[in-house]
Amino acid sequence: MVFETKRRLERLRQKMVEEGFQCFLISKMKNVLYLTGSSEGFLLLPETGDPQLLVSPLGLEEAKERAKGCQIIELRPGERIFERVAAFLADMKARKVFFDSLEFSSAQLLKERLELELKDGMGHLWNLRKVKDEGEIEKIAYACKLTSLGMKALRESLRIGVEERLLAAIAEYEMRKKGSDGTAFSTIVASGPRAAMPHATASSRTIQEGDVLVVDLGATVEGYASDMTRTFLLPRATEKAIELLDIVKRAQSKAFEGLKAGISCKEADSIARDIITKAGYGERFIHSLGHGLGLEVHEPPSLSQHETEILKEGYVVTVEPGIYIKGFGGFRVEDTVLVCRDGARRFTFDL
Amino acid sequence: MVFETKRRLERLRQKMVEEGFQCFLISKMKNVLYLTGSSEGFLLLPETGDPQLLVSPLGLEEAKERAKGCQIIELRPGERIFERVAAFLADMKARKVFFDSLEFSSAQLLKERLELELKDGMGHLWNLRKVKDEGEIEKIAYACKLTSLGMKALRESLRIGVEERLLAAIAEYEMRKKGSDGTAFSTIVASGPRAAMPHATASSRTIQEGDVLVVDLGATVEGYASDMTRTFLLPRATEKAIELLDIVKRAQSKAFEGLKAGISCKEADSIARDIITKAGYGERFIHSLGHGLGLEVHEPPSLSQHETEILKEGYVVTVEPGIYIKGFGGFRVEDTVLVCRDGARRFTFDL
Repeated sequence: MVFETKRRLERLRQKMVEEGFQCFLISKMKNVLYLTGSSEGFLLLPETGDPQLLVSPLGLEEAKERAKGCQIIELRPGERIFERVAAFLADMKARKVFFDSLEFSSAQLLKERLELELKDGMGHLWNLRKVKDEGEIEKIAYACKLTSLGMKALRESLRIGVEERLLAAIAEYEMRKKGSDGTAFSTIVASGPRAAMPHATASSRTIQEGDVLVVDLGATVEGYASDMTRTFLLPRATEKAIELLDIVKRAQSKAFEGLKAGISCKEADSIARDIITKAGYGERFIHSLGHGLGLEVHEPPSLSQHETEILKEGYVVTVEPGIYIKGFGGFRVEDTVLVCRDGARRFTFDL
Repeated sequence: MVFETKRRLERLRQKMVEEGFQCFLISKMKNVLYLTGSSEGFLLLPETGDPQLLVSPLGLEEAKERAKGCQIIELRPGERIFERVAAFLADMKARKVFFDSLEFSSAQLLKERLELELKDGMGHLWNLRKVKDEGEIEKIAYACKLTSLGMKALRESLRIGVEERLLAAIAEYEMRKKGSDGTAFSTIVASGPRAAMPHATASSRTIQEGDVLVVDLGATVEGYASDMTRTFLLPRATEKAIELLDIVKRAQSKAFEGLKAGISCKEADSIARDIITKAGYGERFIHSLGHGLGLEVHEPPSLSQHETEILKEGYVVTVEPGIYIKGFGGFRVEDTVLVCRDGARRFTFDL
């Protein structure tokens, strides 16, 4: 981990120096974690010398233990972090500064104190974060395994009359006791007409005969997410429901088969979208095919018609076509997969 | 709910108009939820006319169902939200605009298009959000009840050899199946020397004889959080551990007794801090007495030595003194309480 974070910091520093910038301000927790191994602190990466990690007294022990390559600076209780950042930037005579995320109010404070050019450098961080290394792939694969186990536990508890919320509880409990640090997002357990809402979380609705049930589940392992969706048809589901789920499954399967390094996000999306459109439901596929996944459950790139980026080896993305019909139900099947040179590797499974 | 959100929107609009501003941009999910009932969308509150809620296709159904008082505007897939915001502000000829949170990059885009004064108006939102109304108090109290039940389930499963992670799983499962929408934060289950880290989440460490165990747990109900900590001493705990827990319990109990509307945050903090300081551990009480709680688990005000704000009726805060000794352990007891005219009402209980 120390080796990995050091390599990441050096690559980011190199980009920064190439573009003539003197410092990179990193405040987003997931970026700090990615670059230092610590989930605590505000990171300043200067042109030369040790990265500085500003930490509150509460996070001090974690930072010392985990952010080995950094100089750890303890903030005084009540101290305003951007006062300290301004002093640091003044000391090093920085004129051009990258940030990953910066509140307008904080930028104003810096600009009042100093003559600075501030520039969004999040793209450089995404360029690093999008390509997963071995350690990251291991964590994501493990989170996916836990999610597959949670989905299995849910499926085995599925029966008429059970509450959506209890199904969520069962899946989450299974993941948690087997090693998940928590859910990657609010678990979706949406049955009957609720299945038509792509973001419906688990409610007190009970499962009925003939229901469609969409379950979207994710675990977290050392900060890394997983994401998996299955659609279940309860006994006496309609012919139409069976047909729609079949279309979505075909689209998902073909998109997975076609996915590989070298194709664009748009091309990947088109594989699934063409199948759903030909079946007459293109208008009902209201989101993109998928998204990048890593320390965050939604990361770039978006596998959509608006994204021309070429997929690279080491990207981890979701493949999740869906059809949603208001008042009737929703249908989505999703796996988390690794983009490889000649294809893709699936991390989520039906166990 | 429609009545409540309408009242909140009108109060915010009134503040805005009083200060001569023409529009309030609201992007933080919890603020949008507070003001509209929908967790989806970007809200523009103009001087006159309906609030406008910009929503992606994915969130459209939820927004339509829940944000009754708003005009719902569907964004095109791939559309940049601040392009639409800029057009809206130009249309209404806004010159002075409040925001709750604004990225420097988004502010730059607006300033390139328009002659605008942009000002952080989050303080106005906090002034509303800090004082909880009846419906909010009900949700927080329910989340606290679930947390008390989770803590009970954990306590009853506590034994030598059990993993921290399993204890977390048991507590979370209990809360979830009884009605929690999810944890309010990463559950802390920190035993032995790990208890000295205030933010240590549950690990694979197994509980040992003589351990101190700190458990910090929270549920969520319709967006509202709860927060509760208990410190357990395992058989053969040292005399010193017993003494330290006793000090923290006394400090917590006295702070709770002294808490009421009309005293300052600093005064509240001092009640507990004085007791811990007199006992010789002032330096080890490394955080503030507590924090506001509502839609977010950490809200203003901070019950700290740096906060002179006067507590008002209807504030919900945590009361959580702690002592942390590296290599030895940590001790913290926390309840979520409602500030009342003549005292405070406890929402978390030992069941």
